[in-house]
Formats: sequence, C-alpha cells, structure tokens
Amino acid sequence: MQYSSALLETLITELTRLPGLGRKSAQRIAFYILRTADGDASRLAQAILDLKSKVTDCEICGNVTETQPCALCADTRRDPALLCVVEQPMDVLALERTGEFRGHYHVLKGALSPVDGIGPDQLRLTEMMRRVKEGEVREVIVATNPTAQGEATALYIAQLLQPIANLKVTRIARGVPMGSDLEFSDQVTLARALVGRKEI
Amino acid sequence: MQYSSALLETLITELTRLPGLGRKSAQRIAFYILRTADGDASRLAQAILDLKSKVTDCEICGNVTETQPCALCADTRRDPALLCVVEQPMDVLALERTGEFRGHYHVLKGALSPVDGIGPDQLRLTEMMRRVKEGEVREVIVATNPTAQGEATALYIAQLLQPIANLKVTRIARGVPMGSDLEFSDQVTLARALVGRKEI
Repeated sequence: MQYSSALLETLITELTRLPGLGRKSAQRIAFYILRTADGDASRLAQAILDLKSKVTDCEICGNVTETQPCALCADTRRDPALLCVVEQPMDVLALERTGEFRGHYHVLKGALSPVDGIGPDQLRLTEMMRRVKEGEVREVIVATNPTAQGEATALYIAQLLQPIANLKVTRIARGVPMGSDLEFSDQVTLARALVGRKEI
Repeated sequence: MQYSSALLETLITELTRLPGLGRKSAQRIAFYILRTADGDASRLAQAILDLKSKVTDCEICGNVTETQPCALCADTRRDPALLCVVEQPMDVLALERTGEFRGHYHVLKGALSPVDGIGPDQLRLTEMMRRVKEGEVREVIVATNPTAQGEATALYIAQLLQPIANLKVTRIARGVPMGSDLEFSDQVTLARALVGRKEI
C-alpha cells in the first residue's frame, strides 16, 4: 500500500503495537492526533516520556510510583495491620476503586507459573515475608487472581505464612459476580459460590 | 480515587481523550507502556511529535503529506485523466487499499452540511475546479460517503462540473456490500441495489 505520508504510517505502526489496538483503531487515532491541537498532541507525547523516565517501583510495596515510598505506603491514615497481596499494580487500582480497603498493599509482580518459568524466586515474596515479620501486620489478604496460577500462588503464600504466630491469612471471596444471572455462571464459579456460602 | 502515581494518572487521562479508548483500555495501554522497552515508548512519543510538526496538507490534492506535492500527486505512473474526489484523507487510504484505482485524488476536507455550518466555501471545491479546468482530467469519480451529506455533496459537484465539455462525472456504486446477506440489508441499500442493477 502506498501511503501519502510515511510519518503517518510510522505512527500507525507504533500504535498497533499497543494492546487492544488493531489497524483500524490505530488509523482513527492517528488521524485524530493529526487534527487535534498541537498542545494536546505534545501533552500526550510528554506523558508517555514522563511515565517511562520518572515512574519506578515503590521500594516497599512494588506498586508503580514516582516518589519513594509511594503515596499509598506513605499514607499514615491507612491501617498497617492489614496487608493485601496482589499480582500486578493494575490490581491495586482495581481494589482502590472499590473504596473498601484501607490497609496497605504488596505487589508480587506476577503469579507462580512453572510453564512460563516463573517460580517463587521471580516473585516479590522475600520482600513480603520481611514486611510481615518486621511490621505490625495482623492479617494478610491474598487477592491474587482466581485463575490456576493465582490460586496456586495463594496456596503457596498461605504455606509460607503459616509458621508466623498471631497472623490471619485470608483469601478474597470467589463466587457469582454481582449483577449476573445464575444460569449464565460457569460450573466452577457456581460450585465455589455454594462451598463459600454464608449465613444471612 | 488515590493513585500511587500521578504521572500514570496523567497518561491515562490523555489516552482517554483519543477516539475509541475508554478508561479500561487507556489503563491497559498505560501499564503496557510502563513495562515496554524505553526505546519503544520514546519511538511512540517521537512519532506523535513528528506527525504534528512535519505532516501538512498536500497543496494539490489536500491529502496528508510531509512532502510537496504528496507522493500520490508526484507519482507519474498514475493516470492524470482520472480524478477521484473524497471527503477525508482516511478515504484515500481506504481506496488505495483496494488497489483498484490508479488515478489522482482530491480531498474536499468534509461534506456539505448546513446544520454544522459547512457550505461550499468550507470545502476545497475551488481547488477542485481549477484542477479540472487546467489539467487533463477526463473523468471525475465522486467517492463521497453514501450518507445524506455525502450524497448532497456529490450532486453539488455534478452540477458544478456539468458545464465543462468532454468531462465524465461518475459516482461510486452503492448497493449490497460483498459478503453480506440480503435479508440483513436495510431498505434504502436494497432499493439502491435494485435501481443500480447491471446486466451480467
């Protein structure tokens, strides 16, 4: 195909590398950027560069941050007795959006997956153990994904933490999602919902 | 919501301004950029800046380009007797992808739409008339969109060009799209397909 602008083609190619963007969406975005004000486009470009140059991992929780420690770890209003363990920084965002959790986080940066060569050494488990042993943590909430890898990781963490006295280890509830129809729930989820039933 | 990184929040906000990107997609892309190699991210940022600073409109056809005239106008292997009139630069891309057209293009930069305040003066019609009168154009193919605005623009162009001797003015065929089922075609399209029927 002969494009009238090689730079347009370059941007479209770069955009298609991003997750969820096909050629058509990339094209629409490229033409939008072409029509938009210069300031908007340069702000977008600058935001990309800033993110790469200034954002790092929080030394304590492993979440993304541009300060050390991150705003969540530095927040003294948060309960230091609660530690929520998640796989990825995106999971922190998802949990924060609920507004239900006021403790601290620990990002593992993955889940156990022998097939992909990810064992305990590839996860931030040593850091987690240190925080639990040295800090005032009373409950570890394991909020890894409800997938095979996430469940395996949760079990592994429970075993790691078991020897520590006066520590509760909990797992987020798995069951039928809110707003869904029972008839459309898969067997595994529905079985989980039955097993995890609670008195009203 | 309290984000652990303001820069991450900034990029997500900038990304949600782009067409077709909601908050979730923007978040996925932002985290992808965070994990990707530095080179990839800076190439993307540079591509955005380059597009804005170096890409302009071709003085002849109005298509996007970084050279004057654009590669399509400069291509001597293209037939100067054929001129295809389209609404937007994106339409040129779409037509070039078919590989069926080897003439030149003329981008109107819109379509007649009195409601939006777009009259003949807002379109690149004067430039089109000059090209047709001064050049060796023998056929003008009107490829505006098959919408109310596009059809009105096509009629207007046909009237403008009517006085010029030895000039054929054609409109792209409108009918049932390839690969579709007749039963799912709307009435207007199907009526068009009947009226525009051809001998096999």
